[in-house]
Amino acid sequence: MMSQPQIKIDRIQRRLDDIWDIGSTDGGGVTRLAYSEEETEAINYLCDELPDAFDVQTDSIGNVFATKEPDAAESFFIGSHLDSVFNGGRLDGTLGVVTALEAIETAYAAGDPPVPPTLVIFRAEESSRFGQWALGSRGALGRLTVEDFSATDQSNIPLWQAMQQQGFQPNNLSEPTIDLNRVAAFLELHIEQGRVLDREETNLGIVTGIRAPVRYRVTVRGDYDHSGATPMGLRRDALSGAAKAVVEIESLAVDAAEEGDLVATVGEFTTYEGAINKVCGKASFPIDIRSNDESFRDSFEETVLERIRTIVDERELSVDIEQVDRSEPVDLDDGISSILEDIASDSDITHRRMPSGGGHDAMNLQHAGIPTGMLFVPSIDGISHNPDEATPKETIEDAAEVMSRALLHGPSTESEE
Amino acid sequence: MMSQPQIKIDRIQRRLDDIWDIGSTDGGGVTRLAYSEEETEAINYLCDELPDAFDVQTDSIGNVFATKEPDAAESFFIGSHLDSVFNGGRLDGTLGVVTALEAIETAYAAGDPPVPPTLVIFRAEESSRFGQWALGSRGALGRLTVEDFSATDQSNIPLWQAMQQQGFQPNNLSEPTIDLNRVAAFLELHIEQGRVLDREETNLGIVTGIRAPVRYRVTVRGDYDHSGATPMGLRRDALSGAAKAVVEIESLAVDAAEEGDLVATVGEFTTYEGAINKVCGKASFPIDIRSNDESFRDSFEETVLERIRTIVDERELSVDIEQVDRSEPVDLDDGISSILEDIASDSDITHRRMPSGGGHDAMNLQHAGIPTGMLFVPSIDGISHNPDEATPKETIEDAAEVMSRALLHGPSTESEE
Repeated sequence: MMSQPQIKIDRIQRRLDDIWDIGSTDGGGVTRLAYSEEETEAINYLCDELPDAFDVQTDSIGNVFATKEPDAAESFFIGSHLDSVFNGGRLDGTLGVVTALEAIETAYAAGDPPVPPTLVIFRAEESSRFGQWALGSRGALGRLTVEDFSATDQSNIPLWQAMQQQGFQPNNLSEPTIDLNRVAAFLELHIEQGRVLDREETNLGIVTGIRAPVRYRVTVRGDYDHSGATPMGLRRDALSGAAKAVVEIESLAVDAAEEGDLVATVGEFTTYEGAINKVCGKASFPIDIRSNDESFRDSFEETVLERIRTIVDERELSVDIEQVDRSEPVDLDDGISSILEDIASDSDITHRRMPSGGGHDAMNLQHAGIPTGMLFVPSIDGISHNPDEATPKETIEDAAEVMSRALLHGPSTESEE
Repeated sequence: MMSQPQIKIDRIQRRLDDIWDIGSTDGGGVTRLAYSEEETEAINYLCDELPDAFDVQTDSIGNVFATKEPDAAESFFIGSHLDSVFNGGRLDGTLGVVTALEAIETAYAAGDPPVPPTLVIFRAEESSRFGQWALGSRGALGRLTVEDFSATDQSNIPLWQAMQQQGFQPNNLSEPTIDLNRVAAFLELHIEQGRVLDREETNLGIVTGIRAPVRYRVTVRGDYDHSGATPMGLRRDALSGAAKAVVEIESLAVDAAEEGDLVATVGEFTTYEGAINKVCGKASFPIDIRSNDESFRDSFEETVLERIRTIVDERELSVDIEQVDRSEPVDLDDGISSILEDIASDSDITHRRMPSGGGHDAMNLQHAGIPTGMLFVPSIDGISHNPDEATPKETIEDAAEVMSRALLHGPSTESEE
């Protein structure tokens, strides 16, 4: 028999504040890079907070797994990461770890979780230092490559050396560091990093899948000419051709978003040897297209590329379109999403199903076949990777309660009480 | 009684080649900056080429005036400049000086110019070194400002010091260095720096006026957001708003160019803290609008600014529009243009009236009330300010002949023979 878990929001707040001190920046943010001293210090702090009854295992690349029941046949993994981007916010990753510990502690205080939970702290989720993301979770799953290990940071230190500097000695890259058969499920809470929940005044997002990007770099070429001496009809203006493409991409994306899950973004625009008094002969921009529906994304992608080629042809320009990234969207586990949804409804917490726009450790676990769920809490004004990152305190409390009740429920839909 | 002037194209070619050697660059171009040793050397070379009968005057800022008849009550000024941009072409300015000398020599050989010509070599027409253009012609006209004199080059040398280094001692800035009442007219030949003549296979442009620019810098602001996590409907994308403005400016300019003389250009585009995975919160671009019809330009300008504001409002973005330049177009002297046109027709040289897209020394002389004419020869492929700058040899010969016959005709339409 179990009682309602009693989340201690002050304990969450204290731990967030304590971790915030590790690597805090002048502007109120935090710099706690992948495989830095600060990341290690934050992990050590969190381990010190664990009740004595916890068994703590650190794998060969520094991921931490802490559980009261290390010998159980199965475990419900729950957690996130403690590293940050340069001058990032205090909640990204950290909130997921701190609320996971709170959820475990209050679940045990209220009852007996059917599948014993394991707190997980993945290393190095952010790509800021090595240009590669989710190194810890991918390593735990045996999915790091030689390229990942030799990726270097801003001081030319390769990942393998940074791992060694923090005391780790990775050996067999292609073997998981954990026994995947023991992992019954994974649950991660994260700030949304977008505006949807904040704008809709909804407290909890139940993530149905991770939108994965396909990315291009488009380079348009025309002729450089004197701005005053070249009549409009004699121009091959690469800049305005590229600008037209940007406008059309946005317009196509707005239309597509009515039909299915899709966002498309041109986030940067470069002109080469541009000047106020020249018609510009070369311009380039990246395109980032994301959807949780791969075939919808593929068909949109085709429309976009065709439209760019039409614009370029009409203007007698030339274009190079280079694909720079392509990954597959992931659907998270519907059973776990339903459990989370039922709990949120039962607790009168406003919630909605939604896709995740960015990648998270959770995506890799689902990819590896582990039933995975994910919760989003609002980012106030959508702010992310920034010192101003924030989530209302009451919402954090509600979310931790949902997590705790999910642990008490267990990952299987059949075991409902 | 006069005969047909006999242009010596080999003499023109030799002088162009000799001057090309002064400041020539590895890539086949020339660097002969304003008030550099190279500019002085090129001027000295040209003065050495003058027949002994010429009286050479150098004013207090280094402009050269050479004539066989220094005591005549009036003179027909003809010439251009010998300085260049960094790694510029061999014809810009230089062709105007060399053909002017050829025109004077062959005019005297063929007859007796009714108004004695004066070869003019203006200093420092290009803005590459000091950021200010036409320093020599403006100085000759008493139109340099204290700001011009204190403008510095890339090594922080101010203009006044660069003048002193070349042996000049300017004193009264606001007084012309020449007796304006003696200047009956001015004639300048220049390469077109555009594609019109080359594209139309026309050998001579008779410049009716100089398009003057009005220039703005437009800065659009929206919100930075996560590219994957922010639905299309929740974005305030500064980049796509700015791109939309660029496309509209071009479209308005294409329409306006059907109605009157107008070109409008966005030649550069900057995104701030842009990235492939962010919605961009700030973008800026310059606008350069030119016409030889000021009221037409003003009305177009108003339409453009209103359109930008509408686009920004519709997208809930904000915008700063800063005017960075505004100058008045100049109509050159119609009488001189008619004389040049008649001579070209008479000589069966293909020609057309056309505006100049850029500023030239000629513009300043007309501004000062001196009846001024200007001739363009084609820039092959519109190339300018570039080592590949070129004009067909036969066209140069034809143009020099027109100039020479113009000197023999004289600047007054009433004195037609």
